[in-house]
Amino acid sequence: MGESSDEAAIRTQIEAWAAAVRRQDMAGILTNHAADMIMFDVPPPLQLRGIAAYEGSWPQFFDASPRPIKFDVVDLKITAGQDVAFAVALMRCAMTEGGNVDLDFRLTIGLRKIKGQWIVIHEHHS
Amino acid sequence: MGESSDEAAIRTQIEAWAAAVRRQDMAGILTNHAADMIMFDVPPPLQLRGIAAYEGSWPQFFDASPRPIKFDVVDLKITAGQDVAFAVALMRCAMTEGGNVDLDFRLTIGLRKIKGQWIVIHEHHS
Repeated sequence: MGESSDEAAIRTQIEAWAAAVRRQDMAGILTNHAADMIMFDVPPPLQLRGIAAYEGSWPQFFDASPRPIKFDVVDLKITAGQDVAFAVALMRCAMTEGGNVDLDFRLTIGLRKIKGQWIVIHEHHS
Repeated sequence: MGESSDEAAIRTQIEAWAAAVRRQDMAGILTNHAADMIMFDVPPPLQLRGIAAYEGSWPQFFDASPRPIKFDVVDLKITAGQDVAFAVALMRCAMTEGGNVDLDFRLTIGLRKIKGQWIVIHEHHS
């Protein structure tokens, strides 16, 4: 099966988000994220509630990353309905600790279409 | 907002799945899971592809759990459209290692409605 236009739009959006992470562009990272989103991050705590907590999670990642920042979408599968979608990805970043070693991690994103725009209401990184 | 009937059906289905885990009922665990599902589990490897690999992940969990097995849905939020949905949960299990200590973890589930039945096509446990 090919991707639907919604799935293609979400793929473009997620690639743009990852590019924003790589250039530490916080506005680009936060765009199209819900105010009450729930984030499950790699480091503790168990959950982060709300966009301010989500924004606050990024400096720790930037501090731990070698330059240029690596935050690559390796494999991405999107399942989109009319107004709810989720994305499942394998990701690659790097950590200065241990000598700039690559770190593969998993990412699941949940979205809802609101007024014609796909909005991230959940991210699970692990 | 209250839950839609689809959201209520998915909640019932996830609670039934967790109950099946607690009684080590493999048929109950596997029901309404897609043959080509992708699982991101707590222990390695990074991903498990397909229902056979998913089934194969459970004995390790059972071996590590005190009896009776704990696998409780602590907090569950469901977002359902017409044919795609995702669920975000905080979960609690226990591990014999370290003296039957509780272990809180995160769970994201992605579902698609196929012929009127919600089918799990992705689980992310971490």
